[in-house]
Amino acid sequence: MAFDILVVNGTVLTVNADFDVVEEGAVGVRDGRIEFVGAAADLADTAADRTIDAEGGLILPGLVNTHTHMPMSLFRGLADDLPLESWLHEHIFPAEQRHITPDTVRAGALLSCAEMLLSGTTCCCDGYFHEDAVAEAVHAAGIRAVLGQGVIDFPAPGVPDPEKNVQCALDFVRKWKDRSPLISPAIFCHSPYTCSAKTLAAARDAARGEGVLFQVHLAETRGEGEATGLDGGITPVAWLAGLGVLDENTLAVHAVWADAMDIGVLADHGAMISHNPDSNMKLASGVAPVMEMLAAGLTVGIGTDGCASNNNLDMISAMGAAARLHKAALLDPTVMDAKTVIRMATIEGARALGLSDRIGSIEAGKEADLIVVDARQPHLYPLYHPASHMVYAAKGSDVRHVMVGGRLLVEDRKIHHLSVPGIMADVHRIADEIRRTDSKRDLSG
Amino acid sequence: MAFDILVVNGTVLTVNADFDVVEEGAVGVRDGRIEFVGAAADLADTAADRTIDAEGGLILPGLVNTHTHMPMSLFRGLADDLPLESWLHEHIFPAEQRHITPDTVRAGALLSCAEMLLSGTTCCCDGYFHEDAVAEAVHAAGIRAVLGQGVIDFPAPGVPDPEKNVQCALDFVRKWKDRSPLISPAIFCHSPYTCSAKTLAAARDAARGEGVLFQVHLAETRGEGEATGLDGGITPVAWLAGLGVLDENTLAVHAVWADAMDIGVLADHGAMISHNPDSNMKLASGVAPVMEMLAAGLTVGIGTDGCASNNNLDMISAMGAAARLHKAALLDPTVMDAKTVIRMATIEGARALGLSDRIGSIEAGKEADLIVVDARQPHLYPLYHPASHMVYAAKGSDVRHVMVGGRLLVEDRKIHHLSVPGIMADVHRIADEIRRTDSKRDLSG
Repeated sequence: MAFDILVVNGTVLTVNADFDVVEEGAVGVRDGRIEFVGAAADLADTAADRTIDAEGGLILPGLVNTHTHMPMSLFRGLADDLPLESWLHEHIFPAEQRHITPDTVRAGALLSCAEMLLSGTTCCCDGYFHEDAVAEAVHAAGIRAVLGQGVIDFPAPGVPDPEKNVQCALDFVRKWKDRSPLISPAIFCHSPYTCSAKTLAAARDAARGEGVLFQVHLAETRGEGEATGLDGGITPVAWLAGLGVLDENTLAVHAVWADAMDIGVLADHGAMISHNPDSNMKLASGVAPVMEMLAAGLTVGIGTDGCASNNNLDMISAMGAAARLHKAALLDPTVMDAKTVIRMATIEGARALGLSDRIGSIEAGKEADLIVVDARQPHLYPLYHPASHMVYAAKGSDVRHVMVGGRLLVEDRKIHHLSVPGIMADVHRIADEIRRTDSKRDLSG
Repeated sequence: MAFDILVVNGTVLTVNADFDVVEEGAVGVRDGRIEFVGAAADLADTAADRTIDAEGGLILPGLVNTHTHMPMSLFRGLADDLPLESWLHEHIFPAEQRHITPDTVRAGALLSCAEMLLSGTTCCCDGYFHEDAVAEAVHAAGIRAVLGQGVIDFPAPGVPDPEKNVQCALDFVRKWKDRSPLISPAIFCHSPYTCSAKTLAAARDAARGEGVLFQVHLAETRGEGEATGLDGGITPVAWLAGLGVLDENTLAVHAVWADAMDIGVLADHGAMISHNPDSNMKLASGVAPVMEMLAAGLTVGIGTDGCASNNNLDMISAMGAAARLHKAALLDPTVMDAKTVIRMATIEGARALGLSDRIGSIEAGKEADLIVVDARQPHLYPLYHPASHMVYAAKGSDVRHVMVGGRLLVEDRKIHHLSVPGIMADVHRIADEIRRTDSKRDLSG
């Protein structure tokens, strides 16, 4: 019984419950699933249609990015180092109003898929507008994704009438449900400060009715309560809990300003957390209380956020930021150790998206989402501890091979099934238009 | 009058006083110096022995890493996520005692040179023991460096008798002075808590007598004053000032716990600062008050620290960390903007090392230390603002060509003048020995 693909000659970080690491390991894949993981010496049958030589590198579960806005790669670096209000109202919102169409969304999403695949992300959780075009891009790219059409109480690209925002999101869910084994539709309800109680409740009902993930930005900035119109007596988290919005299918994104009581509320409702350290730092949102969340038993995944606020989709960079940021903030070098961070970027991220029974670790029976990281480079020598290496020394560019659902999408750092130069050329053209209309053209900026 | 090398078809970030950025720019190099920088259209004569096509990428001054311990790449990831005491006393010190020899130092330093060159660093400031072997490695690698033999009041590798520590450092300075145009010897006095007042004063006199840089770790951790034996009334910075150690040739490394009065003292004495955000975060030292330092007029460069505490020598990663960390700590997205950070990683770093008249910017007359960054990759599309791109989106692996003193050391990401596989094999052998004797062999760690 031959494997379709056999990966050999690497150290396997299984990220199973015991965090087993197998030196001189092998992973056998058949029909899109992992059939064997263990020591190469224990392989009864090494017959395979295709053998991938990891050449002494590391074999890991594909990384799970729990928060993206894929089309926003079009705005990568458009406006940085600015006050939040100026960034949003003078640059990002005008650019979205002028330039976001299904075609530009598709182009930006394809670019993001290429970037994610080339840096080891095999699954992401996205929320934006014209999400149907994102889904088309994701389908073409072959990456795994949870996709939510945006719900917001303002006219948005593709949803000029906010009255129809929830219906539009629901239509998207129904269209993409069971349509692709790699795509899980979701509802992306923007935030407490941009959605009314009525909208939040309707979006919640839609998500529950369809049994899909409900994503919401929550407690991102210190001023969010005020922006939401809440008096000091109630936090955005408590407000959502009171509206009955939080449950075990809720992904609360950021939760930077969740206080001890909020964390208890989130844990009591079984809500999941997406932690985005690079974005939280760059936008000066603050430092999320991740250690307290973990202590409360919350499931916390890692995300990059969109390229307008990070400015990359590199989960290896995000792992490094997560590991380092909390040590500095808490003045404790033992917190957010490498194993914890790798779990958050794989199995815990999968759990946050409701996918941990299918992906997130290299275990027999799981769908074959895995990556091979090249270790034969000066910055990765010597290699003492594989987990530590991934978090503190590796870069996204060290990812050599990427497999999603048993399909090899990146081979020796090349993507063959997409025209990456063509995608880049499309984005270049769109960016020329964006640049022409943006107010901040400062070459030295 | 032909150029030796002409770099064309890129956007030049000159990092001159006006931070001029030249689109469709060119840089002409002759006899190791920059002779032309400007628009390619303004080139009177394009004759050149060698033309480098930047292919639409970015051309920057080489990055200046103001703090390294090059040989410690041998300990990359040996022991992470541990309390400082356990990390030092159970892992790093024993490994240094057992394994640090001139041969292992040379091997580790060569590995570090390869890593630095491949990620765009053209000049570093190093401090370690057996620094003579580091100098040999640096000379072979062709990188520019300020090198200090370590002074510490304990038996150290190569200096078993601490009574001879300053003399040994002085011998190193005299040996390497005027020996190579790329090597500037220095004195590396370890810290207030590991050197007595007598040692600090003697090292200061040695540095002043030779007119070389005096490097010292200072105010790195909250407990440093106590570890130094100071009562609460005086800080390590004030103590050094009182000893007459601080002057305009002093590089104070870290200065995380420099308070407002310390910053005033450092500024009054004209001392320079090396800021190491990745190391400060990973070791949980804290967040250095860099904005206050800049406001006080201090010169602040960026460093990576050694690979036992970071675990990489990637200055592009360090730039990203510097830009993000202070925004999060101060809850202000406008601080540490991309231009400021690029200045710190180039011209300000050069100034901190006393080299700003020779390197740190792309200006006619300066020595030709420059890098070409590839922009033709998904994670670097689109390109609106070059400075922002370098800090928030680029990776060390995007550096394509590297020139030091007019010599092309990295060409299309290949180093031809060193046997990188040979260096890696040497380090692999040394690491096998280190691994055998280290107490923390935990594969899943």
